[in-house]
Parts: sequence; C-alpha cells; structure tokens
Amino acid sequence: MNEPGRPPVEAMTNPRADRVRDVAKLTGRSGRLKRRQFLAEGPQAVREALRAHHDCLSAGGTPVVEALYATVECLKKHPELLEAASAPGSRLQVRIASEMVLAAMTDTVSPQGIVAVCNFVDVPLAEVLAAKPKLIAMLCRVQDPGNAGTVLRAADAAGADAVIFSSSSVDIYNPKAVRSTAGSLFHIPVVLGLTVTEVVLAAKAAGVGVLAADGYGHLNLDQLQDESAARAFDQEIPDSSYELEKPTLWLFGNEAQGLAGEEKALADHRVAVPVYGAAESLNLGTAATVCLYASARAQQRL
Amino acid sequence: MNEPGRPPVEAMTNPRADRVRDVAKLTGRSGRLKRRQFLAEGPQAVREALRAHHDCLSAGGTPVVEALYATVECLKKHPELLEAASAPGSRLQVRIASEMVLAAMTDTVSPQGIVAVCNFVDVPLAEVLAAKPKLIAMLCRVQDPGNAGTVLRAADAAGADAVIFSSSSVDIYNPKAVRSTAGSLFHIPVVLGLTVTEVVLAAKAAGVGVLAADGYGHLNLDQLQDESAARAFDQEIPDSSYELEKPTLWLFGNEAQGLAGEEKALADHRVAVPVYGAAESLNLGTAATVCLYASARAQQRL
Repeated sequence: MNEPGRPPVEAMTNPRADRVRDVAKLTGRSGRLKRRQFLAEGPQAVREALRAHHDCLSAGGTPVVEALYATVECLKKHPELLEAASAPGSRLQVRIASEMVLAAMTDTVSPQGIVAVCNFVDVPLAEVLAAKPKLIAMLCRVQDPGNAGTVLRAADAAGADAVIFSSSSVDIYNPKAVRSTAGSLFHIPVVLGLTVTEVVLAAKAAGVGVLAADGYGHLNLDQLQDESAARAFDQEIPDSSYELEKPTLWLFGNEAQGLAGEEKALADHRVAVPVYGAAESLNLGTAATVCLYASARAQQRL
Repeated sequence: MNEPGRPPVEAMTNPRADRVRDVAKLTGRSGRLKRRQFLAEGPQAVREALRAHHDCLSAGGTPVVEALYATVECLKKHPELLEAASAPGSRLQVRIASEMVLAAMTDTVSPQGIVAVCNFVDVPLAEVLAAKPKLIAMLCRVQDPGNAGTVLRAADAAGADAVIFSSSSVDIYNPKAVRSTAGSLFHIPVVLGLTVTEVVLAAKAAGVGVLAADGYGHLNLDQLQDESAARAFDQEIPDSSYELEKPTLWLFGNEAQGLAGEEKALADHRVAVPVYGAAESLNLGTAATVCLYASARAQQRL
C-alpha cells in the first residue's frame, strides 16, 4: 500500500510491456467482456470512480477500481486523487507511468495523465426495481457511444434512479461512452443486456408506468406537464391522461429510427415532445433531456 | 437549366479536377470566408437547403444554393431532390459526380451521395431584433462543432427566433457543425461575429430580457417555471423573480468553463438549471435544451 502524499516508486516506461498490453485490451469489447473490467480516463472520471470505490468498500461491497496508472505530473496537479487512491484500506494499486505508457493503454490522443482499471458496475434489474424507483430511462438500440454517455449524464442530472441499455445497444463501457458520461456512470445504477420486453414486463409488474418517447405519440408532453402543474395548484383536471408524478420508465429509441412499432406497443402511452419550430425532429439527447426533466419536475413537486 | 425528372448529363469523374478542388476548399475556414460559401452534405441537409433556397428566391432574396453535386444513385433514391433543384427558376447547377469526386469534395468518409454549395445564411443582429423576437439563444465561445450544431437544432425545436454565436466561437459553417444541425441551419436565423457585450446591449435596448445559464446562478429554473405556471393558473405570486413569458435572450457558455464572470455580469439574472442527481454539471446541449424549452413552454401558454 502507498503512503498518502508520497508517490509510489518504480515508474512504468515501456509501452510494449505485457501489463500495458493487458490494460490496452480493455479498449476493445471482447477484452472488457473477458475480464469484466473497463477503463475510466482523466481526472474527473477517476475522481468519481474512486468515490464510488470507497462507497462500495464501506458498504461491504466489491471494489470498483482495481488499478490506477498516472503520470507524476497528473498526480502533482491532482494530489487529491493520489490521496483518495492511497487511503487506508483502498485495496488498489497505484502505478506511476510515462505519458507514452498511458497513451498505449488508452485509445485517446490525450489521455489526461491518469487511467483507472474498473470492474463492471452494472447491476441486475431486480435490484433496481426492489429499491422502489421513481424514474428510469431505457435506451433501445442506441448506436453512438457519445449519445449513450450523454443521455446517462442527463439522466443523472435529472435524478433518475437507473439507466437501462437494451441488449442491442452500444457498450456503455466503451471508452468514448465512459468519457461522455463525465463520471455519471459511477453515480447511477446501470442495467445491461435485457430486451425491451423483459424490462417493460418487469417494470409494469413493479407498478412502474411505461412511456415511449415518440414524435408521433398520441399524448403531448406539454399536456402532461400542464396537467401535473394543475394538480400542484389544486385545479380540476377533467380527463387526466397520465400522471407524470407516478413512478415512470421512459423508453427512448435508436438515433435514426426511433422506437420500433413493437417497442411502442409495449408502453402504456406514446408521448411526443413538442417541436415548436421547423426542426424535423429532436436528437436523442435533446428528447431524452426534455422528457426526463419533465418527469423529475413533476415528481419533485410531490 | 435541367428539365425536371431528367438527370443532367456529363458526370464528373476526376477527383483531381480544378472544380473539385475548389469545392473542397470550402471544408476549411479560410476557403469559406474567402467565398462566403459553405457545404451542406447529405439528403436531409440538402433538402432543407433547397427549401430555404426557393423560399428566399420567392421572397426576392438571394439564392441559398449555388451548386449541387450528386451521384446518380442518390438522385434515383431521392428524386424529390432532383425535382426541387431543377424546378423552373431555381437558378442553380446540378452536376452528376462519382462517389470518388464527392469524397474528394467533402471531409466525410461517407458523403451520402450529395453535397450542396451554399451561400452564407447568417443575418445581421438588427434584422433579428427588428422582427420582435421572443426567444434567442447565444453561445459564447463554444468550441466543439458538434455541440454548436446540436444546440442550434435544439433551439430550432424549441421555436427560438435566432441563434447567435459569439465571435470567438467555432465556425457554424464547419462541415461537422452543419451536419449536427440536421438542417436547422436553414430554418432559423443565425447571427455571427459579435461579442457578448454588443449583443446584450442591443437586446436590452430592444426590450429583450437577458438570462445567463449558470450552475451557480442565484435564480433556479424550477422556480421561474413554477411562477410561470402559477400565473397561467391565476395564482398570486408574492415576489416574481423573472417572467419567463417575456422576450428572452439566453446566454450559454463554453463547454468547459461556462460563462465568464464579465459575461454573467451583463445578464439581468443568472439562472441555474436544477441538478437533482449526483451529476457535477450538465453538458452544454442538455443545459441549453432545458432552458430553451422552459422559455418556450412559458411563452406558448400566453
């Protein structure tokens, strides 16, 4: 174990070393699946990973971070990271490495001087549903890692209880996706590898309403929000369509095609985000943000 | 002029031809500034460009599209584009080109078979303000072309009347930015090359309120929205902080640093988007979406 405040010795300088190659294998999906590990790059992601690591260990759980590789410059600039990593009982290796070693470990042009090898953090759906969630986002067949990460981060900001990626989605442990989450991957439970049908049936059984975001939806999000505000002001609502205050699972579709017909059919309602201007449609991140924030606001007023 | 329905002859097949090089110069900023032209790639962007082109010509304005280069395959798949481009009075060249020529003209790996050479579409700020705008977004020192385009598209969806990019922002005519707008660059007036101070002073003089999006803002967007909803339900509001229904200019900062102190000081109020979860902050696109949709909803209720 390293003493706090003192950088560990024995810097890694050979980018072709076996250990460097081993870490670099985590930039590919098969490497990640084999070891059930992934990479978190840069001070922000590593800070959140270390926080989750200590929270997990304190709760008697498994460690999040297995190893940390950093340049001396980075640890000088971010001494709090070295301190967090070397805290008593942290049970992780900190290794000083050269810029070239870090570049060889990651797929970024500028790896920002630090990379953590993390264990997969996804959880089973049953665990999420047992915690009586109020707001869940599910991404169905999302293809772009940047989009996946952006929506995860927006869901975290909106206070969602979990984000679910359908089995045919891009891998959220992809380095670009992890970067786009800006640390949110370590804040919010993530569920992977299930079909929309499996998730919707389980959610409904747990009393969670299911809304499909759909540009052609029969309900309009403005209407749902106005009804929710009206309830908050004790106004009478003749025909309430859906109470946004209720525990809700939102389904979001693929970037290009949106949700498939059979996916929409599984939801309780299809809800359109209003387009006030001439835009043909919303991009996935924009649509998800508007929907999740609408639910969050309605639920916050309770 | 080409007859509708009949593809023009004389296909371009030499990627090294002078004309191809001339078009390719528009992928760089200096080439664009010199000719005040830019490239719109792919069927969706070209469709919106042609629509704007005909609208401009009908209104006695200058043409938007100067020339169109497309593969035979693309025109077969999208005959409506050939028809729109060849309509009587369209005043533009349509040239058939090979895939290799299109690849040489653009900076994309897959140029989607069609590219339009367009004249700059930005307008003076005075023109925007003279039209009594209700909702304007200004991006200050935004650096990423994808972000710039995404926010422009979100502003279009929220029905904003204009989007302004500060003089130190990324070029919205950058091909990646144009792609990210998904055609919205041709829907919504864009103003370029002004400082935040110039824009804020002119907006205030035109009676437009100015809000700075700021994670540490003294006002909270939820509060402004709740007050707006309360007004809609004729509830009494003791101390209204800012009426979202009013004509509003939103200022959004750089991706990494947000707004600078002096930029925030120019605004009437600094408004925080609520973060309900553990996310440290919102990304630019998410924050802008939430703010613009909040204004749009309040204004729609009027």
